Amino acid sequence: MVHNAAVIGGGVIGAGWIARFLHNGVNVAVFDPAPDAKQKIDVVLANAALAAKKLSDAPPRTPGKLNFFDTIEQAVVDAELIVEAVPEQLELKRSVYSQVESAADSKALVASSTSGILPTKLQEKMQHPERLLVAHPFNPVYLLPLVELVGGEQTSSRTIERAKEIYKDLGMHPLHVRKEIEAFIADRLLEAVWREALWLVKDEVATTEEIDDAIRYGFGLRWAQMGLFETYRIAGGEKGMRHFIAQFGPCLKWPWTKLMDVPELDDELTDKIASQSDQQSGRYSIGDLERIRDENLVGILRVLEKNNWGAGKTLKDYEAKLNAEIEEK
Amino acid sequence: MVHNAAVIGGGVIGAGWIARFLHNGVNVAVFDPAPDAKQKIDVVLANAALAAKKLSDAPPRTPGKLNFFDTIEQAVVDAELIVEAVPEQLELKRSVYSQVESAADSKALVASSTSGILPTKLQEKMQHPERLLVAHPFNPVYLLPLVELVGGEQTSSRTIERAKEIYKDLGMHPLHVRKEIEAFIADRLLEAVWREALWLVKDEVATTEEIDDAIRYGFGLRWAQMGLFETYRIAGGEKGMRHFIAQFGPCLKWPWTKLMDVPELDDELTDKIASQSDQQSGRYSIGDLERIRDENLVGILRVLEKNNWGAGKTLKDYEAKLNAEIEEK
Repeated sequence: MVHNAAVIGGGVIGAGWIARFLHNGVNVAVFDPAPDAKQKIDVVLANAALAAKKLSDAPPRTPGKLNFFDTIEQAVVDAELIVEAVPEQLELKRSVYSQVESAADSKALVASSTSGILPTKLQEKMQHPERLLVAHPFNPVYLLPLVELVGGEQTSSRTIERAKEIYKDLGMHPLHVRKEIEAFIADRLLEAVWREALWLVKDEVATTEEIDDAIRYGFGLRWAQMGLFETYRIAGGEKGMRHFIAQFGPCLKWPWTKLMDVPELDDELTDKIASQSDQQSGRYSIGDLERIRDENLVGILRVLEKNNWGAGKTLKDYEAKLNAEIEEK
Repeated sequence: MVHNAAVIGGGVIGAGWIARFLHNGVNVAVFDPAPDAKQKIDVVLANAALAAKKLSDAPPRTPGKLNFFDTIEQAVVDAELIVEAVPEQLELKRSVYSQVESAADSKALVASSTSGILPTKLQEKMQHPERLLVAHPFNPVYLLPLVELVGGEQTSSRTIERAKEIYKDLGMHPLHVRKEIEAFIADRLLEAVWREALWLVKDEVATTEEIDDAIRYGFGLRWAQMGLFETYRIAGGEKGMRHFIAQFGPCLKWPWTKLMDVPELDDELTDKIASQSDQQSGRYSIGDLERIRDENLVGILRVLEKNNWGAGKTLKDYEAKLNAEIEEK
């Protein structure tokens, strides 16, 4: 779908993009002024190659070619897709776009990797603002499929549609964020957790390790396969989301987080959530969802066990104990 | 470690406990006044049996025996561990404890499954308050290893130590929450996400499905294996947590969530987080952590692919496409 891409900025995110492009047969032109940029990118490419080999049994595409350039203008001249992955400073990003537009094809897409700055602000001073969008990926970019696509006021629908096709072709799951909002969707959720976690550490309720364990031995195992609402749909039993909200709703009034500005869970919001949840998962019975969830959890736990990590280590220790009990008999 | 347990309340959580006990050779005496209690518990036991067979290659223990009783007093008379899993109403729970104590051995532990009520409040009117603790599990209880242990002001340290041993023996990961706080650790994080997610749905930024996808195609895959802080430690690169906080800290002042009451990220809090993170993961280099993370992610993605679910479906579709491309050639 894309033959030539440019990546401006070779940090953790930029390097992850480079790895995903190369693996999918896309040539990549890189601009990064840091003296150790190439060296750091090579480390990420080595990790990505290792992971790719284990991830997929399908025959890989012929890898793309990687080239480094001394200026943004040189890097973007042949690119159909230009990825901006520089630090979260609006003026810096705008100056990158200005250099990009001085040399790039006017139809090339410009995709910002920003975690939260509004595309309307990013595109404000561009010559061709219609081709700018946010394509926000998640670290490690070469493994995690999510990419949030966000258009600004001047972004064309053609840009969004083209981007959806491109990222799908790269093996990703493009999620079009239909309403522009700071931090988009995933990072708003992460930011809420991060703020609550900071309170827990500050108030010495828990250490960083205890907080991580509270996630990875528990709800983190659910969230790798279902999200928040589908998990709660199951928790509501056959009566579904409405029942869950009736049970869990009152806690909203309780001091169960330091973060207290909450919407009223009135009938209108309850109806909206319950009917969206039906739309999402109504084709499965709760019994189906429970079996799917368990099948996924078993597999995930066994993977973690094989790697002797987290909840898999708990399982491994437990199995060793069971085996020892048998030997004692 | 425990031969006889009693479970008061056979809902989703109570039934999950019953399954975990029986599978580990513990006899269970159940009290639940609902006419369909037995039938609902049987469904959970069937799911749990299916999962247990696939989860572990170790020889299972000889299953415990399940008995139903018409009164709380009858159910608890022989129990060494009494699990309370009734609705989140303080007075209801207190009346259960009163009935429990009228018949149970005075040394039997009483473990509440509450998601958030303080154990100090729960134990207030007990004859032997020292034996009450919160042991908060996560659905499905027969698969997720996390159990948060929380003592109240009157809980003895012996009770906590004994509980740690018991839950470890059941294949769980007991996490002792050292400071009593509403909703403990995991549910505070969940509550923060839930509140932010309610805003996103209410303001029509995203549907329930889009929010779930923003989790399960992205950070949810990280959280099944590492948590919040270890993931961010990696994101900070070789310079670790301090570098990450310097980069990510400023967003705390930005409107990246509706939930705005945040602690000051001053030097003291930064030091606390960074040194706890060193304690937690400092024995691994960032390169080690990256490889561990990728190994886990590959396995999890392949499991989800085999089950054609979520991020695994994205991978499966992508592989089908690669295979088709080869066939075309």
